[in-house]
Amino acid sequence: MTERGLSRRALLVGVGAAGGAGAMFAAMSALGLAPGSHDTPAFDAPAPGDFALRGRAAARVVVLGAGVAGLTCAYELGKAGYDCVVLEARDRVGGRNLTLRGGDTLPEIGGETQTAKFGEDVYFNAGPARIAPWMVTMDYCRELGVPVEVFVNSNSSAYVYTGGMRAPVRARTARADMYGYIAELLAKATDAGALDKRLTEQDRERLLEFLSGFGDIGGKHTYEGSPRRGFGAWPGILPGTPLPGPGTLAEVLSAGTGRALTMDFGFDQAAPMFQPVGGMDTIVTALVKAVGEHRIKLGTRVTRITDRPGGVEVAYDGGAVTGDYCIATLPPHVLAKIPHNLGTPVTDALRTPVPVSAGKMGLEYGRRWWELDENIYGGSSETDLDITHIWYPSHGYHSQRGLVVGYYAVGRHADGYARLTHDQRRARALTQGKKIHGELYRTGLLSSMSIEWRRQPHIEGAWVAWPSHDGGFTLLQRPAGRVYFAGDWLTSLVAWQAGAMESARKVVTELHTRALARPG
Amino acid sequence: MTERGLSRRALLVGVGAAGGAGAMFAAMSALGLAPGSHDTPAFDAPAPGDFALRGRAAARVVVLGAGVAGLTCAYELGKAGYDCVVLEARDRVGGRNLTLRGGDTLPEIGGETQTAKFGEDVYFNAGPARIAPWMVTMDYCRELGVPVEVFVNSNSSAYVYTGGMRAPVRARTARADMYGYIAELLAKATDAGALDKRLTEQDRERLLEFLSGFGDIGGKHTYEGSPRRGFGAWPGILPGTPLPGPGTLAEVLSAGTGRALTMDFGFDQAAPMFQPVGGMDTIVTALVKAVGEHRIKLGTRVTRITDRPGGVEVAYDGGAVTGDYCIATLPPHVLAKIPHNLGTPVTDALRTPVPVSAGKMGLEYGRRWWELDENIYGGSSETDLDITHIWYPSHGYHSQRGLVVGYYAVGRHADGYARLTHDQRRARALTQGKKIHGELYRTGLLSSMSIEWRRQPHIEGAWVAWPSHDGGFTLLQRPAGRVYFAGDWLTSLVAWQAGAMESARKVVTELHTRALARPG
Repeated sequence: MTERGLSRRALLVGVGAAGGAGAMFAAMSALGLAPGSHDTPAFDAPAPGDFALRGRAAARVVVLGAGVAGLTCAYELGKAGYDCVVLEARDRVGGRNLTLRGGDTLPEIGGETQTAKFGEDVYFNAGPARIAPWMVTMDYCRELGVPVEVFVNSNSSAYVYTGGMRAPVRARTARADMYGYIAELLAKATDAGALDKRLTEQDRERLLEFLSGFGDIGGKHTYEGSPRRGFGAWPGILPGTPLPGPGTLAEVLSAGTGRALTMDFGFDQAAPMFQPVGGMDTIVTALVKAVGEHRIKLGTRVTRITDRPGGVEVAYDGGAVTGDYCIATLPPHVLAKIPHNLGTPVTDALRTPVPVSAGKMGLEYGRRWWELDENIYGGSSETDLDITHIWYPSHGYHSQRGLVVGYYAVGRHADGYARLTHDQRRARALTQGKKIHGELYRTGLLSSMSIEWRRQPHIEGAWVAWPSHDGGFTLLQRPAGRVYFAGDWLTSLVAWQAGAMESARKVVTELHTRALARPG
Repeated sequence: MTERGLSRRALLVGVGAAGGAGAMFAAMSALGLAPGSHDTPAFDAPAPGDFALRGRAAARVVVLGAGVAGLTCAYELGKAGYDCVVLEARDRVGGRNLTLRGGDTLPEIGGETQTAKFGEDVYFNAGPARIAPWMVTMDYCRELGVPVEVFVNSNSSAYVYTGGMRAPVRARTARADMYGYIAELLAKATDAGALDKRLTEQDRERLLEFLSGFGDIGGKHTYEGSPRRGFGAWPGILPGTPLPGPGTLAEVLSAGTGRALTMDFGFDQAAPMFQPVGGMDTIVTALVKAVGEHRIKLGTRVTRITDRPGGVEVAYDGGAVTGDYCIATLPPHVLAKIPHNLGTPVTDALRTPVPVSAGKMGLEYGRRWWELDENIYGGSSETDLDITHIWYPSHGYHSQRGLVVGYYAVGRHADGYARLTHDQRRARALTQGKKIHGELYRTGLLSSMSIEWRRQPHIEGAWVAWPSHDGGFTLLQRPAGRVYFAGDWLTSLVAWQAGAMESARKVVTELHTRALARPG
């Protein structure tokens, strides 16, 4: 019943946050106390800071990058008494965990610098925006005291719009129609004996019972619409006025709503999803506070990494720092450009993953027309336009202003938007969104911001794609001398903060194990 | 695109809250200004209180019942300047909108009085607990300044447990397996030509493309499991360890998970659903404040209703009040027992709907093991046991204490629990819930409360079922002399607060139209 209890906790790398502040280090300490022993030591969770008090690991670690991976490294090492310094090339912490608020500026490589004009309490999660409940990110939110709330990842009242449709339909309508016809087809094939070789009599009965509920097809096994589709006039005193339709099977199939209906079936997208209250960067703010702001050097671009037998020297514009160890958490394609003495295989490995394009636009409105006029509270409309999705805010319901994500485009669609100026991007996004929401989508707009991650300085990509997990991916799991590598890009959770955190925890575990085994 | 814009607003009864505080009365005022005219008057939304200022309707209205219907009547009438008095037999307002907190007492007809021992910030929505976004309840939350948050109505991490299973499975696993096999069966039937008469070549291609995504069955059209099922060890650095399974088609069908998978397909249950922040009775508290506490007489049991040509007299234990009109919002089976002079057909009509049994148990725990150990944040586990559901709280995530709904039983299951003492109910609910959550379900319990609505004084039922909407249902839509009837039981939204509100709005509209047409 407790998947985590049986599995994640059994892995050293997964012990920490799930078991509380000190659990990971308790396990590691046990390793350090009994090197070479294969016995399972008695587990006794220490109080936070135990390691610092015992002075077990006074080593100095230079962390490259103040994104989620870098900050998690510094946070976990700090618990164990390490002296960390975090070098960050950008003038703000958080990396891709970026929440834009009124007054924030956003430079772009080879482009203009935007300034957010958002009103108070309006924010734009320009990077990650949602957390699955099984992700270690939730454990960090709990441990750091960051409150979470539901991120509506699927909304039956939002729209589906594809080129195959005359007009957008509500997701609930698209689902009812597709499931209704699926159930009808399978029930009729079953009735006609087409599945007799596969099904026992009892199977058949059970299947038909399920299909009847799944498609709301009644005893005739014919889909003729359903209240699940929604209503013209919703039930009140009267039972409600049906919507026009449904269309024929051929019409429903040609509408191409399949992707929208299965969007939240994935293990990483299934409801409920969560977000920190007040913006995703609340996690970053809490990490920075825990690490200590004085340990983070902003605007510090690394120019050379030199691994030596006794330590690591990291040079940056205007200076250098040394440490017993270094953890490099920069994106691999950025890290690959920094001179180092870690060997050609490391450079080749860092050049292997391919940066992926993704972009988002935040559209601020002075009136929440999607709630007031359309009963859409959070979630997304799904389209086959280049905007791909329109996201509605999952917070601040019924308040005045609100921010809609006008596009969240990946790959070639993102590249298309990246080639435009911000004004051109906005004009394009509004033209597309109008197809779903009408003229109000344009006229009600107060302000906007767009981000194209390939054009973000010192990041240069939304995430990366590995051709395979052999070769470079495997090589970089191991340290190059005293230099470790960490980031979502070294995990099976690429593009998720949870990946950055899991990678950080793995590397910290390895580094600490090594430091305990070879003190001094 | 704006269903409400095209439909609900077109109905006078639906104009009010959707259009803001004064919109309904603006429309009604227009009617009053032009009696007998069939022209559509120009619409100009008045400021709140316009009617009071113009002194249009100074009539006195006696409202029976301070539940959601009664309070909504008094609230809307108050906007228009009516002098209302609300008589409530119970010693608290809200009726079935009942949120229990620490220190609250709960009497039971023929049973013991329980006292809630819940800790601070722990509450138990013993009656309604969720709101669909299209319901007028959301409009009242907005108008009354009651903040809302997501009620997780479906959770892929919660469990499904039926007698057909050896052990509970996560909802995501049950869904992946059922949809996987459904997709396989239909794809193979399609491949075998069984649907050739129904599908064109293009239809077939589109269907197979949909099924491939719907069931994650790949090009072979065979379901062999899917990451959608979840993992033993979730992805981190490594890709994740698959769960055992899936079972065979026959095993999946025999597990009987169908109801659980389609639970949120209904128009009134589809995600996202909402709840007021801080407990459902926040709506009641806001209504009482708007109505004025001094207008509500608690502990006032009505003993006789007398309709006269010039007004209505309502007698209660120890006194009587008179009004120009009366609105009776008590449950029909309770109202039927009060002597009146409204005629036998009214009594017969009130006796027509049948009270339905429903009960809930709140289980307070000192540690949120469902979040910490099982990654369940809100939503419900679905069972075929007599507890039916286990609900997890959709608020206060990561806080210390939390309240789980140990059963929400309807009909015969509720009757079964109603026959027991509270201690017996709890013992039974824990025995059942242990099948899903193990020993912790019992050992971690701090306190509990149970409610059986058939045994609630002056309510005597969870909601009602009408044999049909002819006869009594239709009769009671009209006033008996100067006595009107209102409640969810007179709508197509029985058991929903939205029904109570819609009915109240209808009756207030009719009463006000009449008062304006015949002033004095």
